[in-house]
Amino acid sequence: MNETVKVALKSHPHQYEIKIGNNLLADSGVWAKSCLANSAKKIVVISNPKVFSLYGEKVAESLKNQGFEVLIHKIGDGEKYKNLRTLEKTLDFFSRHQLKRSDAVIALGGGVVGDLTGFASSIYLRGISFLQIPTTLLSMIDSSVGGKTGVNSNFGKNLIGTFHQPNGVLIDVDTLKTLPRRELTAGFCEAVKQGAIANPNLFNQTSDFLKKYSPNHFKKYFFSNLFLTDLQKLIASQVAFKAEIVKGDERENLEKSGNRSRKILNFGHTVGHALEKVTNYKYFKHGEAVGIGILVAGEISKRVANLVQNELNLLNDVVKLTGSLPNWQNIETKNIIEAFEFDKKNVGDSLQWILLEKIGQPIIYPNSKIPDSVIIESISAVVKKSTCP
Amino acid sequence: MNETVKVALKSHPHQYEIKIGNNLLADSGVWAKSCLANSAKKIVVISNPKVFSLYGEKVAESLKNQGFEVLIHKIGDGEKYKNLRTLEKTLDFFSRHQLKRSDAVIALGGGVVGDLTGFASSIYLRGISFLQIPTTLLSMIDSSVGGKTGVNSNFGKNLIGTFHQPNGVLIDVDTLKTLPRRELTAGFCEAVKQGAIANPNLFNQTSDFLKKYSPNHFKKYFFSNLFLTDLQKLIASQVAFKAEIVKGDERENLEKSGNRSRKILNFGHTVGHALEKVTNYKYFKHGEAVGIGILVAGEISKRVANLVQNELNLLNDVVKLTGSLPNWQNIETKNIIEAFEFDKKNVGDSLQWILLEKIGQPIIYPNSKIPDSVIIESISAVVKKSTCP
Repeated sequence: MNETVKVALKSHPHQYEIKIGNNLLADSGVWAKSCLANSAKKIVVISNPKVFSLYGEKVAESLKNQGFEVLIHKIGDGEKYKNLRTLEKTLDFFSRHQLKRSDAVIALGGGVVGDLTGFASSIYLRGISFLQIPTTLLSMIDSSVGGKTGVNSNFGKNLIGTFHQPNGVLIDVDTLKTLPRRELTAGFCEAVKQGAIANPNLFNQTSDFLKKYSPNHFKKYFFSNLFLTDLQKLIASQVAFKAEIVKGDERENLEKSGNRSRKILNFGHTVGHALEKVTNYKYFKHGEAVGIGILVAGEISKRVANLVQNELNLLNDVVKLTGSLPNWQNIETKNIIEAFEFDKKNVGDSLQWILLEKIGQPIIYPNSKIPDSVIIESISAVVKKSTCP
Repeated sequence: MNETVKVALKSHPHQYEIKIGNNLLADSGVWAKSCLANSAKKIVVISNPKVFSLYGEKVAESLKNQGFEVLIHKIGDGEKYKNLRTLEKTLDFFSRHQLKRSDAVIALGGGVVGDLTGFASSIYLRGISFLQIPTTLLSMIDSSVGGKTGVNSNFGKNLIGTFHQPNGVLIDVDTLKTLPRRELTAGFCEAVKQGAIANPNLFNQTSDFLKKYSPNHFKKYFFSNLFLTDLQKLIASQVAFKAEIVKGDERENLEKSGNRSRKILNFGHTVGHALEKVTNYKYFKHGEAVGIGILVAGEISKRVANLVQNELNLLNDVVKLTGSLPNWQNIETKNIIEAFEFDKKNVGDSLQWILLEKIGQPIIYPNSKIPDSVIIESISAVVKKSTCP
C-alpha cells in the first residue's frame, strides 16, 4: 500500500528513499533506524511548537523504542524564523548536547523546518545525517526532495544555504488532515506546476485528483481508503518527477539550460517571486503566488511560445481547482515588473522565463526576447479572467 | 620551473590544480581566469590588513588587468575572528555587492582567511567558486588542500563548516620571505608530520631541506635560485601527499580507518589539540603544538607500536630542526590528559591515536589500548629531553 521512490545521486549520500504512506509516524523509529548507520545514537528532532504538539510525541516515542536518545529542539513557526539567528541557536543546541558526527537530525514540519534543519545538519561538524518528515503538501512534493537547504538573509530569501541530501524522507499523508486550506492550495499549485512542465500524465493525474477531491473539503475524505491511495499515488508521482529532474542536475548547474534542467522547476516563479516581493513576503503563501505566476506564464506562453488556447484553458482550469487565491488585482503591474530585476532566481544570469510550448514541454526564454508589452498584456488578461468569471 | 599538482576528486569541482612557484602573484589574474568559467565577472578578494598591505594591490591589479571587477573585503587578523560574526559580515558583503552564482572569491592569506573564505563561498547562494592564494607555510601545505572549510563556535574550533573544494590554489613561495619565524616553525612541524606518516622519501626530503635551510635564517636564502627550487619541490611533494590522502577520503568518512584514511593526518594532533586547549588557544601556534604532539606520539609509538629507537631519534631530530618550540614543561600532565576527552577530532567515535610503526607507516590505535601510564611516561620522556639536551 505504501509507495517508495528511490532518489539516485552523484553526491553523498548516493541514494536515498522517499517512503510514502499513511499512518507511518507510529513506526518512524524503525524507518529512521533503517536509514542511518548503526553508529547513530542521538537524534535531534527539530520542529515548531504547532507541528510538534500534533505529531512530536508519536515520533519521539517511536525513536526511543528503537533505542535512540531523542532530543527535541523547537524553532519559531514561520518564514521569519528561517534566519541566521535561528541557525546559530540550533547549532549551539547540537554542541550543548554533544551531538557527534555519527548522530543524526530529523526535520519534522514544513519547508521552514526542513530548510533550516537541512542547512544546520550540513554545516555542523562539516555535515551529519539528516532525515525529513515533511508535514505540508508543499514540502512533501517539493522542498523535501532535491537537497536544497538554506535560510533567508537581510538581502533576500534562501541566499545562504547548501546542497545537502537527506538520508531518507518519510511522507505520512495523514499529516495533511490537519493542514489549513490555504496551505493545501499552495501545495497543489506547486503540484500543478510540476504536472505542467513534466508530461501530460502527471498533469492529468493532478487535474483528475483535484476534480475528485476539492482542497476546500479535504479533511472529510480521509476516512476513504480510495482517497488515501489516490493521494499517495499522486504524491509518489510528483516526487518521482522532482527526483528525476534533481538526479540530472543536482546542483542547478549554471551551464545547464535544457528542458530537463533544474531551471524548469521555476515555471510560474518569475511572477510568483515578484508578487511575494512587492507584498514583503507577508501577503501570499509561496505556492499561492506561484499559482498566479502559472496563469501569467500561461498567457505569455500563448503569445510567444505557441501554447494553444485549449491547453491554456486546461492549465487555467486546474489552477482554479486548487482553491481560491488571494486577491492581487490591485497590485500595480509596473511594480511587479520592477520586482523581476531583483528576483533571486535571477542571480548568476540574465532573467529567464520558463514558458510552455505544450503541456509537458517547457522552454527557457530570455527576458530580452519577450517585449514588456506582452508581459503587461498577459498580466492584464489574467486579472480580467479572475475578476470577470 | 613551476610545479603543478593535480587534485582529482569525486565531488564538484572534479579536479583542480595547485600551482607552485615564485613571483606568481604578478600574474595571478591570468591564473584566476584560467581556473574560472568565463561567466565570472566579479571577484571578491578576502584578506587581513597585514597580508593585504603586502600583496593585495599586486593581486588586485593583476585581476583588474584581466577584466575582473575586483572588490576587497578585509577581515580581522587572527583565530579569534574566525567566527560566525565575521562569516555573516562577509556574506552581507557579497550580497551588498550583488555577487552572483557565477562570480568568485579569492582567499589571500593564511588558514583563518582560507577557512572562512571557503566556508562563506560554500554557503553563499548554495556555493560559488573560490580560489586560494595561501601566504603561510602551514596553509600552503595543509589547509589550502583538502576542501575543509569552517569557523569556530563558542563550543570549540572548526565545529561549523563544510567540505568545499577550491577551483584552484596558487602558491607563491615568495610570500614566505615575510613570514615570522614562529609561523615557519609551525608550518614545518606539519611538514614533518606529513613526512612521518607518508613515506621515507617525503620524510627525508623534509629533513634534508631543514638541515640545509634553517627556519631561523630563512629570509636570507631567498636570493638563491637553488633554495627557491628546493622550497618549491618540498612544497609540491607535501601537497601531492596531502592531495593523495584527500582523494581517497574526501569527507573524512567515519567508517574509514585504514592507514591511508584521512584520520592519519591527525598524527601529533591528540596531544597538540590538548596543549592548545589547556592554554586557551592563546599560547601555541597550532603547528607548534603539533610539533610537541609528534614528539609525544613518537615516544608512545616506541612503547606500544614497536617504533625502533633509531627512527624515533630521526623524528626527534627533524622536529628540533624546525626551530625552537614554546616552553610547555610546566603544563601539568593530568591537565593534558583530561583535555583529550574534549578533543574535537574525537567527535563521532572514541578517542584514537595515530602512532608510527615505522617512518611512513602510521597505525590507528584506540585510546583504550594505551595505558595512561604509557602516556604519562611518554610525556615525561619528552619533557626530560627538551630540558636536558
